Amino acid sequence: MTRKIPVKTLHRFSMIYCCLLESLAAGVSRISSRILGSQLGSTADSIRKEINYLGEVGDVGSGYDVAKLAGRISDVCGFEKRRTVAIAGLGKVGSALLENPEFENAGFDIVAGFDSNTNILETLTSKVPLYPASELTDWVKKLNIEIGIIAVPPSAAADCAARFVAGGVSGLVNFSSTTVAVAQKGIIVRNLDMICELRFINSLMTANQKA
Amino acid sequence: MTRKIPVKTLHRFSMIYCCLLESLAAGVSRISSRILGSQLGSTADSIRKEINYLGEVGDVGSGYDVAKLAGRISDVCGFEKRRTVAIAGLGKVGSALLENPEFENAGFDIVAGFDSNTNILETLTSKVPLYPASELTDWVKKLNIEIGIIAVPPSAAADCAARFVAGGVSGLVNFSSTTVAVAQKGIIVRNLDMICELRFINSLMTANQKA
Repeated sequence: MTRKIPVKTLHRFSMIYCCLLESLAAGVSRISSRILGSQLGSTADSIRKEINYLGEVGDVGSGYDVAKLAGRISDVCGFEKRRTVAIAGLGKVGSALLENPEFENAGFDIVAGFDSNTNILETLTSKVPLYPASELTDWVKKLNIEIGIIAVPPSAAADCAARFVAGGVSGLVNFSSTTVAVAQKGIIVRNLDMICELRFINSLMTANQKA
Repeated sequence: MTRKIPVKTLHRFSMIYCCLLESLAAGVSRISSRILGSQLGSTADSIRKEINYLGEVGDVGSGYDVAKLAGRISDVCGFEKRRTVAIAGLGKVGSALLENPEFENAGFDIVAGFDSNTNILETLTSKVPLYPASELTDWVKKLNIEIGIIAVPPSAAADCAARFVAGGVSGLVNFSSTTVAVAQKGIIVRNLDMICELRFINSLMTANQKA
């Protein structure tokens, strides 16, 4: 049995899991908490504490069995459960995501793409069905879409998020360079804001230069 | 005078700053810690604690003066300092980033693009100078590039990061769907991994469904 896992630890598990899959692909069968920590910008100690939430996963002294640890994280986090995903905004970034085979490999089925530009809908060739943005909420309901990816321009992001939420998604990943907030409880929003990350790097550079 | 600011708080400042700029653009002149908290998925209390690191920024009772708080964060974090940026990997995502005017608006000058595909270098039209990936380290040195953006395929990400680091960058933003780690101290790496974020949402959905 596992204890209730804090949200922060669940986020770390998804990062640790990525590292483990990369290690497996590289033919690595055992990995230490120190190596995992260095790959994730963390300490061996904090990695061990997080992995403790998973219960028994093998001997820490000789490192973790990579395949076993990955399997345990997958079980606890439910990574074997496939999820349905839609992408709103089919500009360069959105259309690149549509064709990314890694989604399917990772258990995420892209079942719809949306754009408000009829020209894009008519000219873009994709195996994923494409629909007008005005029909987003309806299609999210019809197709039981669980996760929405927002790749629209910043000015349209809040409206796009509201349409996804009205359709009943459980989670949003926001790629537009703006912050999206959702008031409804239980809906998870992840803002991946490039400019925000660049500013953070800038602030660390500034802090390092002052020190 | 301000106290030494924890790295986590610096990251929050860049997020708070994004919210403040959006509020200003929307004509909002005062904002409460509660509103900021709800926009950032945090509590009013934790927002106030973070803002306390900035010293005197105005009356909390009536909310913060948006422009003044943004200015104070910018001063403390050094956001007025422009930084030079290069993008490696000019596929759909990388080339979309090249043309994004928000970088320049936010103080980040994209001064070079790199790709290993000669065909892309010859056919892509951009006001940003483009160079072969084999010359990346040399150009990073010559142009004093401070931040590298990695938009290459996952298999090329580690090598790309190493070239940026050899050239002397201070920070990396990694957009390839893989984790990049850098052993050198003082170099900041931000991994923006879409698949990792989707898995995190999956794990939260799983946890909510169990609860």
